Amino acid sequence: MKPLVIGLGQCSLDILGQVDNYPELDEKAELNSLLVQGGGPVATALVTLSRLGVPVAMAGAVGDDDFGRQIREGLIQENVDCTYLMQSAQSSSQVAFVSVDAQGHRNIFWHRGTAHPVFSERLPGLLSDSVRILHLDGLHLDPAIAAAKLARRQAVTTVLDGGTLRPGSEELLPFIDHLVVSEKFARQFIGRDDPEAAIQGLLGYGAVEVTVTMGRSGSLSMGKGLSPILQPAFAVGAIDTTGCGDVFHGGYVYGLLQNWPLERTLRFAAACAALKARALGGRTAIPTLPEVESFLSSQDEQQTPEVIG
Amino acid sequence: MKPLVIGLGQCSLDILGQVDNYPELDEKAELNSLLVQGGGPVATALVTLSRLGVPVAMAGAVGDDDFGRQIREGLIQENVDCTYLMQSAQSSSQVAFVSVDAQGHRNIFWHRGTAHPVFSERLPGLLSDSVRILHLDGLHLDPAIAAAKLARRQAVTTVLDGGTLRPGSEELLPFIDHLVVSEKFARQFIGRDDPEAAIQGLLGYGAVEVTVTMGRSGSLSMGKGLSPILQPAFAVGAIDTTGCGDVFHGGYVYGLLQNWPLERTLRFAAACAALKARALGGRTAIPTLPEVESFLSSQDEQQTPEVIG
Repeated sequence: MKPLVIGLGQCSLDILGQVDNYPELDEKAELNSLLVQGGGPVATALVTLSRLGVPVAMAGAVGDDDFGRQIREGLIQENVDCTYLMQSAQSSSQVAFVSVDAQGHRNIFWHRGTAHPVFSERLPGLLSDSVRILHLDGLHLDPAIAAAKLARRQAVTTVLDGGTLRPGSEELLPFIDHLVVSEKFARQFIGRDDPEAAIQGLLGYGAVEVTVTMGRSGSLSMGKGLSPILQPAFAVGAIDTTGCGDVFHGGYVYGLLQNWPLERTLRFAAACAALKARALGGRTAIPTLPEVESFLSSQDEQQTPEVIG
Repeated sequence: MKPLVIGLGQCSLDILGQVDNYPELDEKAELNSLLVQGGGPVATALVTLSRLGVPVAMAGAVGDDDFGRQIREGLIQENVDCTYLMQSAQSSSQVAFVSVDAQGHRNIFWHRGTAHPVFSERLPGLLSDSVRILHLDGLHLDPAIAAAKLARRQAVTTVLDGGTLRPGSEELLPFIDHLVVSEKFARQFIGRDDPEAAIQGLLGYGAVEVTVTMGRSGSLSMGKGLSPILQPAFAVGAIDTTGCGDVFHGGYVYGLLQNWPLERTLRFAAACAALKARALGGRTAIPTLPEVESFLSSQDEQQTPEVIG
């Protein structure tokens, strides 16, 4: 199947462990359970789309190490096209250790690895005719900007998962149509805890819509000609919130592909993220389309997005 | 080379990451560097002996996973005979994530894995004629007791690295000639922070010598007909103390093989541990024999063990 969505960005190997309590400095903790699973913002968003039935492809880099092999295998198992997932010679893959405690608190220790995607002469073929959306996370800024510029030329919609505002991030923003950023990104951008002001500022870069994801507080979205939309998070007994943001992005991109109104897209994305949290691991409980539909139809009307003002 | 020492116990894959600061609950930390390396108390003690020039063998279990393959490769690379390192079907290997901060503080998140060594009909051949010492850590209690009983029958000296006092640990103690335990083990045993009292109690199980290792405070040893010996830790700029205890045990076993007086053995073991701390990883900086000798000859007389009373 030719990909409808291509993601360019991070793919990681996640090593997740459950502890009773997050250990104090200098203490040991024995893990009650351990799970090794692929992760990473763009990669897990693509897995979400794949489980929802969308053909997807991953562009990025892994190292020539055991972790890289496991990352690739995990993506292929999820039907993610890895033609553009390169293996960098003599380099290490991105890896994360995630500690999840009995109360669902989460700590992430991550290493970006030394593998870096360089597409150069392969870039022009990246966005094949079938591709409608390019999904980015912006850690590897140069290839992200190059791909986003190409997307503009080929009228491919661009989505950015902004997790951390890094030096140079602003150079990518003018090429983004749909900007979905973390609370942290919004705070770094505006210099204070004011998601609405951050969105107003970010809209200045030209995106059609900007959303700030706020964990258990849901998400806040604004766009051209739209009233602000506050989408609450669905209340589920969260076992592990690792990857909830990534899965939200996958659901968001799914809504874009369906040309849904933003409210519907946000509600759908929130449902995907909530269902993901049912099990340990960023990918374990990513739902299929029937699961999301069944979950949404079971929800009270009160869970529909709140239109402010 | 036929092994002089066989170790039965834990072998692990350590994933070590350096952070600026150990993260608060719910925070992320990006690792400045990452190292994947074999670890585990008995396995790293054996690697120490091997670097010191002693032929050694590892008895234990790994899972049939990627980590298990890496654990075995790491041991073979260090010339550790893995004939008795079994691979348990459909099981997971022991793995640890170790966070090391800029001040050398260390946190360990570890999973014992589901692989469990079962020697059954292979047990009688475990202690071949060449074997003089059996080194144990006691996590897998049943095979440890079986092997220690066999060692008694074959007049093979037994050494136990006691890290944590676990239910049933006492059943193993009567079969141990040299007991080297952590401060934590001593505290658990005696119910308070009193290493000397713990040693007195532990000597009751019949060991020739009992030592409590106390990190930067050195080690305290007592034995039949010996005055207590306090061996200070050598002051080195420690980058990472992961595995220092395991390497101390390796040095201790080396001294036993040489029939050195306990004072000399403890000083040698302390030097091995100090040199190990020079680099990230439980094994990276384990010294060779010339390195230990050169280090010891460079040390002041003040670093010789203190004989109390």
